[in-house]
Amino acid sequence: MVSKNQIKLISGLHQKKQRFANQLFFAEGVKVIQELLQSNFELEHLYTTQNDFEKVSPSNRTLINDQELKKISALITPNTCLAVFKIPAENKINNSGLIVALDDIRDPGNLGTILRLCDWFGIKQIICSKETVDIYNPKVVQATMGSIARVNVNYVDLKDFLSQTKLPVFGTFMNGDNIYQTALPQDGIIIMGNEANGISAEIEKIITNRLTIPRFGELQKTESLNVATATAIILSEFKRNS
Amino acid sequence: MVSKNQIKLISGLHQKKQRFANQLFFAEGVKVIQELLQSNFELEHLYTTQNDFEKVSPSNRTLINDQELKKISALITPNTCLAVFKIPAENKINNSGLIVALDDIRDPGNLGTILRLCDWFGIKQIICSKETVDIYNPKVVQATMGSIARVNVNYVDLKDFLSQTKLPVFGTFMNGDNIYQTALPQDGIIIMGNEANGISAEIEKIITNRLTIPRFGELQKTESLNVATATAIILSEFKRNS
Repeated sequence: MVSKNQIKLISGLHQKKQRFANQLFFAEGVKVIQELLQSNFELEHLYTTQNDFEKVSPSNRTLINDQELKKISALITPNTCLAVFKIPAENKINNSGLIVALDDIRDPGNLGTILRLCDWFGIKQIICSKETVDIYNPKVVQATMGSIARVNVNYVDLKDFLSQTKLPVFGTFMNGDNIYQTALPQDGIIIMGNEANGISAEIEKIITNRLTIPRFGELQKTESLNVATATAIILSEFKRNS
Repeated sequence: MVSKNQIKLISGLHQKKQRFANQLFFAEGVKVIQELLQSNFELEHLYTTQNDFEKVSPSNRTLINDQELKKISALITPNTCLAVFKIPAENKINNSGLIVALDDIRDPGNLGTILRLCDWFGIKQIICSKETVDIYNPKVVQATMGSIARVNVNYVDLKDFLSQTKLPVFGTFMNGDNIYQTALPQDGIIIMGNEANGISAEIEKIITNRLTIPRFGELQKTESLNVATATAIILSEFKRNS
């Protein structure tokens, strides 16, 4: 059974303010929870409707029913389990290889999908502007499908961070070099911009290498790509010859 | 003002059954509506909170207030306008060039994003299995950002369609040819599978060319890419040398 206080705590964790105050977040579903358990995340408590997760100590595990799960879940169709984890201290930024930097990504699904892409392409570091959606937002955690355990994410003043780097800084615009015809290095920072406004003016100034993903077709009316699909194409290009 | 009957009609159009019965669908937001108006879609009626869309005849245009828009909108945060369009007759399938075929894509956001990607990469034809989400679902229309006007979409029995084609049929799997090292033609059918189950067994049998998007990084634990981001990478590879 889940107590009223536990329901109150977990409901609070739907909000960033309460996640920060309690230094806790939650994940749902067997796959995501198992990935987090196998990584360095520290379990606070597991709630499950099945007699599963035998490896988790009984003191950290509560059997609940579907109605109770529904009360604490962030999903329209809850899975069978929800686990509360401690938010780990931010690791030091890994300043080598390819880094993806996010300039105010607001949609949780986009951030989660980008994290999953970074994991696929072996990118170990994501830098987020302070205005980027919280990585421990339940929708982000869900969309990462467990990749959150394998990519280092730091929140920084993006302008300050970029001003100090010695790495080349890449951004995609309508008027840059054709990404398919440009030699791309294995070390560098790739900036992805906000869903509505793209890369902000103050960040654009710091960019050293302007790239373009060419459009095809006669009409060329499509104005933009979704930021997650653009990230997919860019990471594929950076890694395909590596 | 919007009448009770109009509210009832538009609310019905949130459901596939009613869209089919009335042969109508709706779109929201200035950008999407303008793209549809400029294309071959026939406007049934426009509802707007602004005195805009001057080119639309007053008999086809109703000024409404925010409360009225909220009643008919499918969006949590409604835009300023909603337009009802006639569902056009399906065009004949364009059997040349690259064709994207969808094997039971269920998420409206994914279908909309794939349509937008096809538009970007100059793909003129999408073939959907009968179980694929309806292209006139409001969430699909929204996610296409207007690209729905520029890509031909047909719903067919996918197995029958593929059995009759002479084009090479491509699918991505964990154990195919490295997509980065394979010569890719400018004519062919690219199959994208269901979000949870991938490409179905009966469709897999018909595939002539098995491809793989390689994973990078030491751990290689990421099990899959989101279907829209996978489509982005695949289309980019097919088109980059064209």
